[in-house]
Amino acid sequence: MDEVKIIEIKKSVFADNEKDADALRAELKKKKVFLLNLMSAPGSGKTTTLIQLINRIKGRLRLAVMEADIDGDVDAHKIREATGVPSIQLHTGGMCHLDAEMTRQGLDNLDLDNLDLVILENVGNLVCPAEFDTGSCANAMILSVPEGDDKPLKYPLMFTVCDVVLINKIDVLPYFDFNMEKCKRYIQLRNPEAQIFPLSAKTGKGVEEFAEWLLDQISEC
Amino acid sequence: MDEVKIIEIKKSVFADNEKDADALRAELKKKKVFLLNLMSAPGSGKTTTLIQLINRIKGRLRLAVMEADIDGDVDAHKIREATGVPSIQLHTGGMCHLDAEMTRQGLDNLDLDNLDLVILENVGNLVCPAEFDTGSCANAMILSVPEGDDKPLKYPLMFTVCDVVLINKIDVLPYFDFNMEKCKRYIQLRNPEAQIFPLSAKTGKGVEEFAEWLLDQISEC
Repeated sequence: MDEVKIIEIKKSVFADNEKDADALRAELKKKKVFLLNLMSAPGSGKTTTLIQLINRIKGRLRLAVMEADIDGDVDAHKIREATGVPSIQLHTGGMCHLDAEMTRQGLDNLDLDNLDLVILENVGNLVCPAEFDTGSCANAMILSVPEGDDKPLKYPLMFTVCDVVLINKIDVLPYFDFNMEKCKRYIQLRNPEAQIFPLSAKTGKGVEEFAEWLLDQISEC
Repeated sequence: MDEVKIIEIKKSVFADNEKDADALRAELKKKKVFLLNLMSAPGSGKTTTLIQLINRIKGRLRLAVMEADIDGDVDAHKIREATGVPSIQLHTGGMCHLDAEMTRQGLDNLDLDNLDLVILENVGNLVCPAEFDTGSCANAMILSVPEGDDKPLKYPLMFTVCDVVLINKIDVLPYFDFNMEKCKRYIQLRNPEAQIFPLSAKTGKGVEEFAEWLLDQISEC
């Protein structure tokens, strides 16, 4: 298999990220490309969830993945090997998030005229990525069971900016002191509109419901 | 029990954090106060680990805890209720890390003349806190088993700046695809000097070894 393309992202020079994000969103709409921004803490299972998702939807639309990391290219390789879809690696050079201009640097390396969906796997971090609009059409986040049901109280902005919250690793629920109903209440406290899908990226349970929701979003966009 | 004191941390105005951190470290040395900076991703078990640690060492020295969070005061309450040691909450106002000046704002609210050890529980984040020297005498981090054994490859700086890495949640090792030897190799790749202690903050297993290491560090400082 070919080498994964690695893009070294440069620090953004735009002062007004919101304006830039809106412009990028408009461009993508015109091209009919749906950009999904996926965020989470380190180790929540973003890549494994993506593999499960992509293998359910890749026959129904044309998609590509951008993996943002401080270092390494393990995830871009994993995605490509497990799904066969185009996947590029973005190196943030130590930066803890991507803004719209940085996202655009990644998109410039994809063939947008022949894509319906681009998924951006953001840097593993519950703080900084929540503060920067990437120009995405939807924001998704993963909270995994081992992290605890109290995270919406401690990282409020992340839960506020997300359209959908995936509660991953439900296969290990018996081994953790995690109260699902309490967690859902905390999420709704931050964001009453948020869609919530409990799932296990390991077993695949619950992924179908998220996939259907995403396909609906894309068709309505 | 009294209300927990909440300090609203202000953004630092010092341009040279390294110089400021060295100055703070020198002041603390003069006062014979050991500052431990504890970092990790969200949900790795910092607070639970601290409770286990503190209950093993509180009879042997005088200590206090500073809990840094974007919002909430759950952790400072938890520490105080479970250990009885003084605990204050630092609110970072959305900021993803603490630098030396921000740490000093917290320390100003403690009675340093009557303390041997201050533990700073930094914001849950594997990226930004690694970039800012807090003026601590030692840096510790927690990597928990559910996060995966590949994290030293993806968050290199965090592992490089830490004197000790605690591998938490070993009680759930049977349920995760986590290779302890591989993880230790990856940590040593980033930082050959790092002390590594596998432990379970839930059961207490392995905490004693970390406690003894810390007491040694304090006595040698």
